[in-house]
Amino acid sequence: MHAAIIAVGSELLTHTRLDTNSLFLTEKLNLLGVEVVLKMVVGDHRGKLEAAIRYCLNHAELVILTGGLGPTEDDLTREAVESATGRALVFDSHICGALEARFASFGRKMAEINKRQAFVLEGAEILPNAKGTAPGQWLAMPSRQIIVMLPGPPGEMKPLAEEEFLPRLQRMLPPLALSTLTLRVAGMGESELDVLIAPIYKQYENPVTTILAKAGDLTIHLRAQTTSQVEADALTSELGAKIEIALGDRIYSRDGSPLEAAVLRLLIAKGQSVAVAESLTAGMLGSRFAGVAGASKAFVGGFITYNNGQKQGLLHVDPWVLAEHGEVSEPVALQMAASAREQANSHWALSLTGYAGPDGGTEENPVGTVFIGIAGPDGYLKSHRFRYPGGDRERIRQFSVQSSLNLLRLALD
Amino acid sequence: MHAAIIAVGSELLTHTRLDTNSLFLTEKLNLLGVEVVLKMVVGDHRGKLEAAIRYCLNHAELVILTGGLGPTEDDLTREAVESATGRALVFDSHICGALEARFASFGRKMAEINKRQAFVLEGAEILPNAKGTAPGQWLAMPSRQIIVMLPGPPGEMKPLAEEEFLPRLQRMLPPLALSTLTLRVAGMGESELDVLIAPIYKQYENPVTTILAKAGDLTIHLRAQTTSQVEADALTSELGAKIEIALGDRIYSRDGSPLEAAVLRLLIAKGQSVAVAESLTAGMLGSRFAGVAGASKAFVGGFITYNNGQKQGLLHVDPWVLAEHGEVSEPVALQMAASAREQANSHWALSLTGYAGPDGGTEENPVGTVFIGIAGPDGYLKSHRFRYPGGDRERIRQFSVQSSLNLLRLALD
Repeated sequence: MHAAIIAVGSELLTHTRLDTNSLFLTEKLNLLGVEVVLKMVVGDHRGKLEAAIRYCLNHAELVILTGGLGPTEDDLTREAVESATGRALVFDSHICGALEARFASFGRKMAEINKRQAFVLEGAEILPNAKGTAPGQWLAMPSRQIIVMLPGPPGEMKPLAEEEFLPRLQRMLPPLALSTLTLRVAGMGESELDVLIAPIYKQYENPVTTILAKAGDLTIHLRAQTTSQVEADALTSELGAKIEIALGDRIYSRDGSPLEAAVLRLLIAKGQSVAVAESLTAGMLGSRFAGVAGASKAFVGGFITYNNGQKQGLLHVDPWVLAEHGEVSEPVALQMAASAREQANSHWALSLTGYAGPDGGTEENPVGTVFIGIAGPDGYLKSHRFRYPGGDRERIRQFSVQSSLNLLRLALD
Repeated sequence: MHAAIIAVGSELLTHTRLDTNSLFLTEKLNLLGVEVVLKMVVGDHRGKLEAAIRYCLNHAELVILTGGLGPTEDDLTREAVESATGRALVFDSHICGALEARFASFGRKMAEINKRQAFVLEGAEILPNAKGTAPGQWLAMPSRQIIVMLPGPPGEMKPLAEEEFLPRLQRMLPPLALSTLTLRVAGMGESELDVLIAPIYKQYENPVTTILAKAGDLTIHLRAQTTSQVEADALTSELGAKIEIALGDRIYSRDGSPLEAAVLRLLIAKGQSVAVAESLTAGMLGSRFAGVAGASKAFVGGFITYNNGQKQGLLHVDPWVLAEHGEVSEPVALQMAASAREQANSHWALSLTGYAGPDGGTEENPVGTVFIGIAGPDGYLKSHRFRYPGGDRERIRQFSVQSSLNLLRLALD
């Protein structure tokens, strides 16, 4: 089954507000095997809302509206569904009575305006709202399509969806088995990845494959749906295995966990620890490690040496090396890593020095050049030079952190 | 002018991802007097995308598509606009040459697949993408409508929109006098702020006031629109002055710049420097400083002492103080700050030690407790205890960083 979600409300068309209800609904719908194929955000305007409902009915079997069920004249979802479907709105004295009782329970008299919330589309089933005044509605159409109206405030929408809407939906759907697999990949670009694996995953319509890319981090999601769990699992296993063979050690996690968690897991398994010495990233790597609960089992801390004085003072980098090679150079990266490892008394240390821009850089090492050093047990000491596209300071720093984590992962493997 | 925004990408229809590009675009469009009347999210499906474009052309004069301009076969925005408008896609050898040069500058050869990004709709103007491989396109239609295609990654979309798309749009719009004022506030909560200033800004329909809250950081936007610039400026000045009086030194910036930039500006004006000593935040504060271009004029670096061994080894915190008071305590915060300042040879140092959770904490200092130390010139040495709501590790760390920056700002003022 395909679903479309319409978030109703002019405030959702400002620059300060996002529709987040659809994330919750999408998660729950996917678990029932319902795919969301379209999302819309429409203001409080009856004509525009009617057009959006008609459009969604052309593209989905299930149309969910959130919001616009309040008592004010801006709340036009009921009326727009009336126009789009031709079903009449009928006053429901039961709902009205329940509303009056709700207000009375707070010692208040119901305002006349709230009577608008007691109008129901002819033939619709009421979805009672335990947390607010706007009941939801479930309207089954002769076309076998369904229109569902839910309140906008998440605190009302979520319980109403879980208690009333989703169980009703589940009862009419065929039982479904779902299997998912998440592979995370580092050390390559998005197009490089796609060249390698598109010929594989394009052979499968089921599982569905999606790829997410973010600052040097790639996530591959596989999702298979069939009627039997054994078959669904077999589908993701089969495609997953083919992708794993194609990517080899570029895959760092199979459970969705981020790269820093994968590195910490490897370290903890070996009973080893890591320290950092950060120049251009200035703590971003350390902060990534510390973002993982339980990081202290392997991450000890380190140094932020943002200027050359600190590189000399805290990490004892030779002044003549800084003068001769510059602070962004292989020997400086190596000295930073070795010194951080020694002083922090850790098994490993990662160092990062580079030009994040906008200023700085040399002809040989322009903005975007980063040297990453790794010091490890048994005299392990290496450095790697990276050259990222210049022009975006934050992105260069994020890519650097990602690369350093990946280098340590490969060194540990 | 009315605009519709279509966010393209199947990943934006999953439960893990939201379209946030439209918030940025809405803010910029509103400043030009353009109202966003509709937003859609559509998957990587040519037919569905074509239908969405046709629909938006029925409801807006400006249709903006973000995403789907990448090199893979899933990137179908160009083709969907071709189908929806009947304009042919034409290979542009100039773009192709620029793409090849971009890859060459990183020492890489362009993949064949990237040639897809060199196809342009007949009659469209190219919007060059300085940050990525996908150029934007601006297509003026005979109906006087405009279709604009922008890349999906925010790091590419935003600069492209600011440098290429929005100036072009502005030139064709009637001049509108607009005046904006941004006040950023630290050291108080959102509801506390609203109690103070709502009685003031509610008196004004023009300027429009919006408040954004994020991890201890509050931003107040005032926006006045009239036909005369003098009048628009007078409106924001009048309301802005009233809000400034109500908030006093809680306002840290009047130009939109973040708190770390305000602190660095104060330091640079005094010719002073700052170092950090971070435990629970493990580099997040240092990384915030280093995110500001030119930070090295005042930020020198510091220490990440994630475990007690590092607090002792790198910062010489007394073992008996750690044993007697615990690592999350006033004396430890003070020793960390004083030692970091001395060793980094800086004018100021900020230290952070606390329980981010999920484990840890004591009865006296449960998860969410953070001590922040400040060491400064002339024997300045203070610590402050904060107690944030537990349960969200990342949020506790972000609030801590924000509080430490605000304490230094107030100490410098």
